[in-house]
Amino acid sequence: MDATEFRRRGKEMVDLIADYLENIEQRPVYPNVEPGYLRSLIPQEAPEEPDTYEDVVKDIERVIMPGVTHWHSPYFYAYFPTASSFPAMLADMLSGAIGCIGFSWAASPACTELETVMMDWLGKMLKLPEEFIAGTHGQGGGVIQGTASEATLVALLAARSRTVRIILANDPQRPETDITSKLVAYASDQAHCSVERAGMIGGVRMKKIPTKQSNKYAVHGETFLKMIQEDKAAGLIPFYLCATLGTTPSCAFDRITELGPICNAEQIWMHIDAAYAGSSFICPEFRPLLNGIEFADSFNFNPHKWLLVNFDCSTMWVRDRSDLIGAFKMDPLYLKHDHQESGLITDYRHWQIPLGRRFRSLKMWFVFRMYGLKGLQDYIRKHVELAKEFETLVRADPRFEISADVILALVCFRLKGSNEMNEVLLKRINNGKKIHLVPCQLSGQFVLRFAICARTTESRHVREAWRIISQLAEEGYM
Amino acid sequence: MDATEFRRRGKEMVDLIADYLENIEQRPVYPNVEPGYLRSLIPQEAPEEPDTYEDVVKDIERVIMPGVTHWHSPYFYAYFPTASSFPAMLADMLSGAIGCIGFSWAASPACTELETVMMDWLGKMLKLPEEFIAGTHGQGGGVIQGTASEATLVALLAARSRTVRIILANDPQRPETDITSKLVAYASDQAHCSVERAGMIGGVRMKKIPTKQSNKYAVHGETFLKMIQEDKAAGLIPFYLCATLGTTPSCAFDRITELGPICNAEQIWMHIDAAYAGSSFICPEFRPLLNGIEFADSFNFNPHKWLLVNFDCSTMWVRDRSDLIGAFKMDPLYLKHDHQESGLITDYRHWQIPLGRRFRSLKMWFVFRMYGLKGLQDYIRKHVELAKEFETLVRADPRFEISADVILALVCFRLKGSNEMNEVLLKRINNGKKIHLVPCQLSGQFVLRFAICARTTESRHVREAWRIISQLAEEGYM
Repeated sequence: MDATEFRRRGKEMVDLIADYLENIEQRPVYPNVEPGYLRSLIPQEAPEEPDTYEDVVKDIERVIMPGVTHWHSPYFYAYFPTASSFPAMLADMLSGAIGCIGFSWAASPACTELETVMMDWLGKMLKLPEEFIAGTHGQGGGVIQGTASEATLVALLAARSRTVRIILANDPQRPETDITSKLVAYASDQAHCSVERAGMIGGVRMKKIPTKQSNKYAVHGETFLKMIQEDKAAGLIPFYLCATLGTTPSCAFDRITELGPICNAEQIWMHIDAAYAGSSFICPEFRPLLNGIEFADSFNFNPHKWLLVNFDCSTMWVRDRSDLIGAFKMDPLYLKHDHQESGLITDYRHWQIPLGRRFRSLKMWFVFRMYGLKGLQDYIRKHVELAKEFETLVRADPRFEISADVILALVCFRLKGSNEMNEVLLKRINNGKKIHLVPCQLSGQFVLRFAICARTTESRHVREAWRIISQLAEEGYM
Repeated sequence: MDATEFRRRGKEMVDLIADYLENIEQRPVYPNVEPGYLRSLIPQEAPEEPDTYEDVVKDIERVIMPGVTHWHSPYFYAYFPTASSFPAMLADMLSGAIGCIGFSWAASPACTELETVMMDWLGKMLKLPEEFIAGTHGQGGGVIQGTASEATLVALLAARSRTVRIILANDPQRPETDITSKLVAYASDQAHCSVERAGMIGGVRMKKIPTKQSNKYAVHGETFLKMIQEDKAAGLIPFYLCATLGTTPSCAFDRITELGPICNAEQIWMHIDAAYAGSSFICPEFRPLLNGIEFADSFNFNPHKWLLVNFDCSTMWVRDRSDLIGAFKMDPLYLKHDHQESGLITDYRHWQIPLGRRFRSLKMWFVFRMYGLKGLQDYIRKHVELAKEFETLVRADPRFEISADVILALVCFRLKGSNEMNEVLLKRINNGKKIHLVPCQLSGQFVLRFAICARTTESRHVREAWRIISQLAEEGYM
């Protein structure tokens, strides 16, 4: 396919995409296929000779769409949202065409520099403390990671390396393996599973800090302090806390104003994972949820969840970028370049696990400019209002209860009664394929999560969703 | 921006992309900007109110393009290629629109299933041993990682976990930290820097196996065997070898037919990193370079380098997927789904570092079908021929020498004489901005790397590149 044919096919694809998204609510949100459905629909091997483009396009509806879970359907309420907007898609097309691999400044200066400036723009929208803004002289700054899991891991590795360095400075004879074998990381028992995984990957102990319903599933300073004191008494070395703002099960907020001072006093790296909730902090009314950020060493959230920037775009800031770079730096000759030692430039490969990286900041640039800060705030507020509307509907029905405070756009709810009853209800809901939800567990209870996800979700969709849930619950009683 | 406006803007973007790629060789391949150039060209903060789309588009030429290193210019000969093709771009547009996050089968069955089948297609194109093909009953199979660095790390973590498991099975009382502190991983001193980094991340010792010019910079079995015997005698536990097929400096090939049997006998995980060279193995004449794969535990290469699939798409196969899954598995309730335990399905989140993942197999599907196996083979062969043509030009000039065998589409060459002389030559070449190359070091010598990169590189570009190099070398003598 040459550029001339691409002009034609690209425009057809633009229409196909617009058609898909304009009519997405006509499709069943959850697919009706069994595991293994796809293999029999296509050949066992790649063709020797090219297929026609028409055949490929026909197969989108025949092979792909029957197996798609439509995350951008206004009837999708599962997990957390994944972002989608037209400006982000346009920027991503451009990113694909430029197709640079921005591992160093020299590999494509625009790719690196736009990222640094976009991270500053976003940091300012969030009113992050000055130390996290790169500016022209800052020690901190931001980087786009692929996912929050990677940010959690990168922060843990940086913390591990910093702690080892500090201990060795005082005790140069101590074997490094003796240090690492005593390191302990901490996270809430409500933290995302990727946090525990980061500990496994980094080869360090990871302890779960217990939460309880009466504390709204948040980690409090007192509990944490007690744990680290016990661990230190046992000869262990607390070195890393991953605090969560907006947990996956119930959108709970760890008390970072209490945890931060403890971490700072104990030289424990405090990483804040606000994967979902972070986008809301651009609104002044939600910004207080981020208070305590001034104690953090690193902070991460996913504009690719709730800020209209298509996946992947997980934004991470560090207070001191030398901590991050120190954990990863490798400089072979084939990656060296003239400006490297000038101090003015950023080689993002030292900030992350992969070497290669796409030109992802274009998506942020297009989205921030095409929506403006106000447009983005309006978007967040609308989703929160829709969640409140759903909460009101649930509260008005005596068969149901709300299982956790509704702070942003996630509603945790359940039928008053047994877990089994709720499991049956969820199964019915999802089998209906009109709306899609996933569960969570809170204090041993099976709970349904209703997250406002799609950009195009309106009040009528939420009311329709409630009508379906309410009716299925009714039938359950009969 | 709504769907109606996207129809218009999307089509304009298609034309912009086609214009950019059709005229890319008119642009200086390497940008003429100083570090920090971009920040002053745009506002310090995101706008409150939306900008117009026209303003955003105008800024692509004003702000972005002056700072782009044009990886798809036919005058770009630096690093290794990064792939770009129109079918891959079309597929990526569709992937952005579907915008599912395929961490589990249920999160979008098509995303998972197409990936499994495309990995089988590609595995068959490479004539991988049957064990690596998932099929419907296989124990192995493939996964798309973001980059080869991640594949190396994932394999190392799986190896670490397998080794610990095996040792604990025989000696359940042995502390895990005692085991991990004695683990040793190995890679060539020519291996990519990300391999050493994988060792740092995984918290294990990584030893470099020395290579020499007389051995064509390949790791031989004898050297490796001697190292592991010494390490075992010293109480260490060899557990992982990352063998490279096609090293970054000179495209050298480790002797996997010798290394494999040693690894198998010693229960050392053999991972093969063929990031660049792997694409060539779809041609029967290059497939012998992969002989020895039958001893490997895992194998990875980057279709996003040389197989026309835009970044990111790093394909990895494992002989036994339970080894990989075992290193990462986490199953919180919000990610569980009905079919999970059926054995028929794949939850790719257990195969990788991140949780989230794009629908990347669409790119493979479009590219494989629109080119056909023959088209892809032709593409590889053409690049190799162009490299041979360049090699012939270099060999015909008595001032120059070839520094390593030209096996695929990379030519390592230098002026006969001092390193300084070659450094000056490279600086002149890159300052001219007509062509772009990066150096490497081989046996203490500063060497220029000339890699055929762009899809549109033709004989005339290679001859023009040689004319420039040859002339700059001339001037250097005057």
